[in-house]
Amino acid sequence: MTTAICPGSYDPVTKGHLDIIQRSAAIFDRVIVLVLINPAKTPTFTVEERVELLRRAVRDIPGLDQGRVEVDSSPGLLVDYAKAHGAKAAVKGLRAVTDFEYEFQQALINKKLYPDFETVFMSCNSHYMYLSSSMVKQIAAEGRDVREFIPASIYEDVMHRVYKPAK
Amino acid sequence: MTTAICPGSYDPVTKGHLDIIQRSAAIFDRVIVLVLINPAKTPTFTVEERVELLRRAVRDIPGLDQGRVEVDSSPGLLVDYAKAHGAKAAVKGLRAVTDFEYEFQQALINKKLYPDFETVFMSCNSHYMYLSSSMVKQIAAEGRDVREFIPASIYEDVMHRVYKPAK
Amino acid sequence: MTTAICPGSYDPVTKGHLDIIQRSAAIFDRVIVLVLINPAKTPTFTVEERVELLRRAVRDIPGLDQGRVEVDSSPGLLVDYAKAHGAKAAVKGLRAVTDFEYEFQQALINKKLYPDFETVFMSCNSHYMYLSSSMVKQIAAEGRDVREFIPASIYEDVMHRVYKPAK
Amino acid sequence: MTTAICPGSYDPVTKGHLDIIQRSAAIFDRVIVLVLINPAKTPTFTVEERVELLRRAVRDIPGLDQGRVEVDSSPGLLVDYAKAHGAKAAVKGLRAVTDFEYEFQQALINKKLYPDFETVFMSCNSHYMYLSSSMVKQIAAEGRDVREFIPASIYEDVMHRVYKPAK
Amino acid sequence: MTTAICPGSYDPVTKGHLDIIQRSAAIFDRVIVLVLINPAKTPTFTVEERVELLRRAVRDIPGLDQGRVEVDSSPGLLVDYAKAHGAKAAVKGLRAVTDFEYEFQQALINKKLYPDFETVFMSCNSHYMYLSSSMVKQIAAEGRDVREFIPASIYEDVMHRVYKPAK
Amino acid sequence: MTTAICPGSYDPVTKGHLDIIQRSAAIFDRVIVLVLINPAKTPTFTVEERVELLRRAVRDIPGLDQGRVEVDSSPGLLVDYAKAHGAKAAVKGLRAVTDFEYEFQQALINKKLYPDFETVFMSCNSHYMYLSSSMVKQIAAEGRDVREFIPASIYEDVMHRVYKPAK
Repeated sequence: MTTAICPGSYDPVTKGHLDIIQRSAAIFDRVIVLVLINPAKTPTFTVEERVELLRRAVRDIPGLDQGRVEVDSSPGLLVDYAKAHGAKAAVKGLRAVTDFEYEFQQALINKKLYPDFETVFMSCNSHYMYLSSSMVKQIAAEGRDVREFIPASIYEDVMHRVYKPAK
Repeated sequence: MTTAICPGSYDPVTKGHLDIIQRSAAIFDRVIVLVLINPAKTPTFTVEERVELLRRAVRDIPGLDQGRVEVDSSPGLLVDYAKAHGAKAAVKGLRAVTDFEYEFQQALINKKLYPDFETVFMSCNSHYMYLSSSMVKQIAAEGRDVREFIPASIYEDVMHRVYKPAK
Repeated sequence: MTTAICPGSYDPVTKGHLDIIQRSAAIFDRVIVLVLINPAKTPTFTVEERVELLRRAVRDIPGLDQGRVEVDSSPGLLVDYAKAHGAKAAVKGLRAVTDFEYEFQQALINKKLYPDFETVFMSCNSHYMYLSSSMVKQIAAEGRDVREFIPASIYEDVMHRVYKPAK
Repeated sequence: MTTAICPGSYDPVTKGHLDIIQRSAAIFDRVIVLVLINPAKTPTFTVEERVELLRRAVRDIPGLDQGRVEVDSSPGLLVDYAKAHGAKAAVKGLRAVTDFEYEFQQALINKKLYPDFETVFMSCNSHYMYLSSSMVKQIAAEGRDVREFIPASIYEDVMHRVYKPAK
Repeated sequence: MTTAICPGSYDPVTKGHLDIIQRSAAIFDRVIVLVLINPAKTPTFTVEERVELLRRAVRDIPGLDQGRVEVDSSPGLLVDYAKAHGAKAAVKGLRAVTDFEYEFQQALINKKLYPDFETVFMSCNSHYMYLSSSMVKQIAAEGRDVREFIPASIYEDVMHRVYKPAK
Repeated sequence: MTTAICPGSYDPVTKGHLDIIQRSAAIFDRVIVLVLINPAKTPTFTVEERVELLRRAVRDIPGLDQGRVEVDSSPGLLVDYAKAHGAKAAVKGLRAVTDFEYEFQQALINKKLYPDFETVFMSCNSHYMYLSSSMVKQIAAEGRDVREFIPASIYEDVMHRVYKPAK
């Protein structure tokens, strides 16, 4: 049985993330969607909020075997979490070459730190190639409807946080 | 249970290929190493030879659960083979950005042809980043020892085929 | 008034090409779809066939102002054709980074040869990012329906040429 | 008639920018050079200053039909400005692959938000491939003459702002 | 006689940096390892500390002709330092494509500023391809042993600075 | 004293090649311009012709210390030639990312075969970024004057070989 981790900052989760989570669940026995806490960054949503938005979004993936997917958060290094939770692989979605290079270096260093841990990459669905959490927030901040990019179940929370209409 | 395919032309298999095969077997339940027959190319070794060299090389991977890895060959499209053999994923090793782009397009089109089939990418072990079958053949053709790049068990066969010493 | 050229080998035209042609017609006054004859390549379709398939495909683009789009072919250099036909720009669709680099070099050299001629690039529609004429032919050669990738009006001609069912 | 926008932060305008503006004016009927206001960034020059420097620099482009080029600024999304001003295309200069990937994602998302709006890319003139506003400022801050990189008409203003000689 | 500069921020020096320094000394007569002071960045170690850590690390390179390598620091532009110290070349290690593009632009602008100064690139040793000072600090901050990545002689200093164990 | 090799197929030499040769001679004591014989390719000029064109072109580089530059050819591997001739470095010009990746792999494998041999890369002069021998031949084949791209001293030979005017 293979447990895979889908690590990310998920600030907030997008339909691109959900696509990778769903496809990971199709080939691995158990999937942990992991919000990694990066003390160097100032996120838009707290860790607790990101986990809660993810849980809601994952719950609505049609056809997903919910029992095999869980959501968690962790400070520190991905490899330490993986070791503690018996995970053998990380899954990362790639949108572009610059993604690839950063992720590639990260994968090589994780391999050094924990040789039994694999990082596997999936190419993003072409419908979501342009998507990133920061682009979603930038567009939502202008008051545009972003339900094409994020799940409907978290739409109100995202707008409430990032859209400050001029009065 | 997930069956993954490691497709390639394996003309001949290198230590870089074996690294990907071994790591695939660590995270998937069953691995098919598949020699894809490309009628547009003129390989150095016949399909039968490539399968036989692969079988020998795979047999010598230390610690590999041999019962979970098999070697096969196929004409036609990867997705058709996958469908016929119940494979849910292909695993490809990536050395560089140009690899990535070609493989990315191939993965997107395979997804179109067979939506339930995933392509996952692994970054090559940094020791084998420079390796390709054609580079091995180019070096062996000069009479250099290439046992650093290919398994010892196939060394004689490769030299016999590609090294033509001047008389 | 600006005349733009959409140059290519169109062997055969795909829906990705049609997308670029249509979008070019939206921003330029007149568009010449130009089959460039490359004596170094052995195409699947003759120049005359490629022009004829293009004409048929262009005729079926919904909503296109047909009077502003024409199809032609030419040997020799693109810049010479452009000069002779009063075209001020070439439009190229980009799928990926490797495309970009080749096209970039080509654009720089065309600028040297004819400084008043611009090359502009469009990013391919994400639905057609994986598409190329050679991939279409490779899939059609296996007898698969490729109407998702090429216009229906040329489907029979393409299958007839590239699909040779085993008897 | 096609109106194209040359969007940017222009902090300050360089000869590389002017090259793209001039070439855009050669193929489009009307060009709006648009300073996009990004509240997340702290620019060296205010919006008003950047517009004023641009106006001065554009006025000095030899041979330019001044009546077809205007300079403006806008907060918010490019697509909203484009819709309001009847612009059908954005023109972006590309220096390198990393540029390309970011711009490509931006173009795909703009296409989603406003399907009738095209983004076209031009490869930078090879003389200006190395140029960026931030590199110009970094060099000017050392007291070096940067008139090779920015128009002479704005040179004094730039030096006055970024060069603080030690006393 | 050719003097080459190995410029960097060295915050702190890694085994990847030492590899480039050693290889530079093998082909150039004299090598200056130069800590460039970037006022826009907030480094982890002061300039004086970085120079001192570098001196210690360089002193321990086995087989290095110490008389041909020196360590220095400088504010301002690399080309000004090079001119003042009679250096004809800079040597930069490249890990990846994104490195390459940035360095490429930097090299082109340096060539403009000082035409007699060359920038040459070396591909990083494949063992150190994943290495960067910031990754080392990120891992050390978790209390992990990083002596695989940095020289033993500076290990205590690095841990003392970046590792703050929870009490 | 360091001997560096500028390897290539030089089919034929372009001004871009000469730029790299000249800059190599500025930082290395002795430069060998080496025509590598690749039996897998069918060149336009024979090895003897390419050497002779190179000798003529190198002789005309203004200000070059001719005594420090020689032209040679060799079959087999670059590293074997380097070992036999006491060369410590190869110099390669890079135009673009795809160049970089191929050269990078080649450099890593050469390092494996001959650890004391370095490959250093120079970014091409921006005036010659678009240049390649094959582009020159493609343009010359149309009867265009290519003296902007190749040295005047070899112009007649190149036109005579590649330009076949229709009668």
